[in-house]
Parts: sequence; structure tokens; C-alpha cells
Amino acid sequence: MASGRPDNGKRLAIIAGSGLLPFHVAQAARSHGENPYILALTDEADQDWSAFDHIRIGVGDYAAMSRAFEREGIDRAVLSGAVRRRPEWRDIRPTLRTLLGLPAVVRTLLMGGDDAVLRMVIRLIEANGVRVVGADEIAPELLATEGVIGKVTPDAEAMQDIAAGCAAALALGSLDVGQGAVAVGGRVIALEGAEGTDQMLERVAELRRQGRISSRRKGVLVKLCKPGQDSRADLPAIGVDTVHWAQAAGLAGIASEAGRSLVLDRRRMVEEADRAGLFITGILPRRSEGYR
Amino acid sequence: MASGRPDNGKRLAIIAGSGLLPFHVAQAARSHGENPYILALTDEADQDWSAFDHIRIGVGDYAAMSRAFEREGIDRAVLSGAVRRRPEWRDIRPTLRTLLGLPAVVRTLLMGGDDAVLRMVIRLIEANGVRVVGADEIAPELLATEGVIGKVTPDAEAMQDIAAGCAAALALGSLDVGQGAVAVGGRVIALEGAEGTDQMLERVAELRRQGRISSRRKGVLVKLCKPGQDSRADLPAIGVDTVHWAQAAGLAGIASEAGRSLVLDRRRMVEEADRAGLFITGILPRRSEGYR
Repeated sequence: MASGRPDNGKRLAIIAGSGLLPFHVAQAARSHGENPYILALTDEADQDWSAFDHIRIGVGDYAAMSRAFEREGIDRAVLSGAVRRRPEWRDIRPTLRTLLGLPAVVRTLLMGGDDAVLRMVIRLIEANGVRVVGADEIAPELLATEGVIGKVTPDAEAMQDIAAGCAAALALGSLDVGQGAVAVGGRVIALEGAEGTDQMLERVAELRRQGRISSRRKGVLVKLCKPGQDSRADLPAIGVDTVHWAQAAGLAGIASEAGRSLVLDRRRMVEEADRAGLFITGILPRRSEGYR
Repeated sequence: MASGRPDNGKRLAIIAGSGLLPFHVAQAARSHGENPYILALTDEADQDWSAFDHIRIGVGDYAAMSRAFEREGIDRAVLSGAVRRRPEWRDIRPTLRTLLGLPAVVRTLLMGGDDAVLRMVIRLIEANGVRVVGADEIAPELLATEGVIGKVTPDAEAMQDIAAGCAAALALGSLDVGQGAVAVGGRVIALEGAEGTDQMLERVAELRRQGRISSRRKGVLVKLCKPGQDSRADLPAIGVDTVHWAQAAGLAGIASEAGRSLVLDRRRMVEEADRAGLFITGILPRRSEGYR
């Protein structure tokens, strides 16, 4: 887990999907002395990248990616942010190298689980002589730490919800489905699929408005890394937005996996959580039997 | 699984939650010579019960339920339809009998998983000398049968989605969470929590509108009974509405568990599915390893 900029004059690339995560990673990389080059994915990257050297490329455009790697002297790449749309086959612009393995590439991109797609993308990038590294390798300070951050601590009811949410998130993760679950009053009431965490929390807020969740029970959001997940993948992340959505859903707090998930804009997030009376805690699930 | 009306002059009660299911069960009971008495749950039962003898009672009102059982000479009760709201403690009107076990009752009703709540409710009803029976015991013709019904059969891609959805639904069911999952292109993209099947399908339709599901992949809804589910509980059910929602979500079809789920208004449902080009199939998941 060496961090900091290497002295070989080579540059770090950030392949940026949607959400705030890639921007935080880019800022953190800069604070470590890197001069990151951003490959912002068309229809996905939704940040303003004007403060960084960047280009926009299509999700399946390996030819443009390879050219950029060579032109900018890239030796390492971070994959960061969500890629919500799968490429359609007509979006895939192969290089000669990817062309040789094309049927497998196409099959994986169109049909594989998220993890399978990720492994394929890593292989395609590394075929260019570029090493794919985790965001935590560039900016280890983004990793969630164990225990409570902020002023609020989970009570006994919240601990029960953390345990229930953990068991569900572990069961889901082993199927390469989601990373998040919401438990209220010891029951899991929402599970994250392709819609993502924010939309799952929006759904919980709606269930609460409909009176389908007891107004006397708050509940907890649990986010875990999938059991087999490559840490170079987009790790689960929480940030200021997560706190706002959790508050709208009437939750007591957020538990995310220590060492295997990211916390974005920690200071502002903790301020917001303290103000809203939500706890934020880093947990270590016992993967054989859930969190206790 | 004896069906038909007993000769002891005793009456069947249907404790009716929301949705079409209780109405179909009541009609089926009538066709078997029963004269069912409906206890329609306040804020839940949303059918017009004017064609049946009925009263409305609160979800936690065991006192009114006991009085109705005695007055109407009830010897068997079917629990049918969804109960979306948990009773709040102030809604619970105990009888002397339930009062003796009140802390446990309250704890279970407010905090238990659906199955725990159900077992508690069954115990409370049976304490009145009324036997709780499954809808399938009253109307076995409602049970899903194995294999395709209707004109459309699942293709190879759909079979793969059935397998993926099955694995997810089994993993969820063992946690007493949901009964449904949607898989598209071999990936599970949505999981059913407290929101119910129709709302999960609505979400899939929305993901599709946003282009977050490949337009080239249709996908399948899988509904299974939870592994440990008491068959006297509300079994998973599909009907005409499920077909409409599945069509709106762009799915290829619906697979539900043979022998452990219900098919409502089968003839009309099949007509609608045939018209929409959707398959409907009854499957037998291998509970140790999913469906193949």
C-alpha cells in the first residue's frame, strides 16, 4: 500500500464514472503529489472536471483509452465512480489486443455480474502495461476506520439493526448483487439492487411516509464490500449525500465496512451527521456469521 | 389437504388484508360450499366485501376477533392478503388470554420478522379454539402447478435468469426478507423488500427507462415461498396485475414456485400473458443449490 507519487515521471489515470467519488479520489491524489489525468466516461461522469487535465471517452472505447495512456505516459489507473449503463455492443471500440479476445469481452460486458465485468476491464487496462490500483492505495485516508466517528453512538436497537442488515448484505454480496441493506426494528426492509444506495434510501423514506414502517423504529443503513470483491473495484462509499438520504429515510445511522469502504469528505459528513443526530460507524463483519 | 365444507355447521373465517388474494380465496371457498365470514382488517382490506358477511376490525384487535369467532361459530380461519402496516402498541386490544402473554406479543408484532409475527398471530387465533388453515387447503386449485401455463415458453436466456433469480430469492428467503427477485441478462438487478412485488417491478421499469438495463435483455420475475415459511401464511401469489407490471418492466415472463405459491384468476391471467407475449411457469427450486 505505498502511496505518494512515484519518481519515474509517470502519471496516474483516473477512469471516472458517476458520483462524487472520482472527484474526491482525484483531489486526494493531487494532495499526495500526483498530477492525475482524468478519463471521464461519457454519460456517466457527472462532475465538473475543468480543474484537472481530462478527456471524455465512451464506456467501451478501449482504442481511445489506449491512445490516452500512451500519450500521457500513464503507468497506473484507478477505476472510480459508478458505471450505471452497460455498454451496448455497438459502443465497444476495440484495440487490436482486445479484438483478439472480443467474444469473451463482449459476453462479459453485456452479461456478467459487476465483478466479472470489473475483472475483464482490469485485464484490458493491464494489457496496456498500466497497473490498476485501488483508490485506497492512492489515498489511504479515504478508508473507513473501525468504530464511531462523530458524536452520536448507536444504541442497543441500532446494534440489532446493524446485525440484521449485515447478515442480509453478506448474503447478497455473495451473489454479486448489492452492497447495501436497510434494517428497521431488527427486520430487513430494503435491499440494494441496480438502483444504488441513494434510491434505496428514497424508497425507505417512501415506505415510512406510507406508514409501512413503524414510526417508533428508526433503523440503520449497512454498506459492506462484497465478499469476493477486488479492492481495485469501486469500493462502497458513503458521504454527505448518504447522510442526507439516511436522514430523509428517518434512520438512526450508517454502518459501513472498516478497511473495505470509503468515506468521502469525512469532516463535512460528520458535521452533517452530528447536526442530524445520526451515528456513523465503521464495522468489521465476521464474514462467516455476520456482525455481532 | 381435505377441502370442502365440513358438516358440523361451523363456519370458515377469512382474515383479509390488502390485495386481490382474500377475495379470490373467499370466492373459491364459496365454490366449495363454504359460507365464509370475512374479518376485513382496517386500513388493509381494500376489496368491496358487500357480497360476503363481513366486519371490519383493527389489526391488533384480538378482543373483536374473539367475539366474532364465538358469535359466528367459526372453527377454521384463513389468513389472506398483505398486512403492510405493523400495528402500533396502542392499536393492540388484547383479550384476557393475549394479555397474559402481552410483552411477548407486543415485542413480536412490533419487531419480529414477518414469519415470527405470523407464528404469533396463528398462536393467538388458535388459543380461541379456531384452527388456522392454508388457503390451499380451502381451494387447492389456486396452487401453482409445475411447468408452463399459457402459450409462451421461456427460452435459454430466460432459463438463465430464472436460475439467477432463484438463487437470490432463496438467499433472501432464508433471512425472512422477501420472496421476489428480478434477473436480467443473468444478473439480479432488483430484490423485494417491504415494498412488495408490484413496486419492485415498477422500479425495474424505471431502471429500464433510465437505460440502466440493457434494452436487449428482457429478464424474469421469480417468486418463491420462503424456505421455512408456514404454508398457512400468505403464500406468494401472482395474478393479472403481476402480468401487467411485468410487461411494463419489459420482462420475458414470470416463474413462481409450484405447490407453494398461488395463481389468482388463472384464466384471465394466462389470456393477458399470452396477449403480452409473456411466459408463466411453475418451478421447483432445488433448495440446497437453487434452480437449474
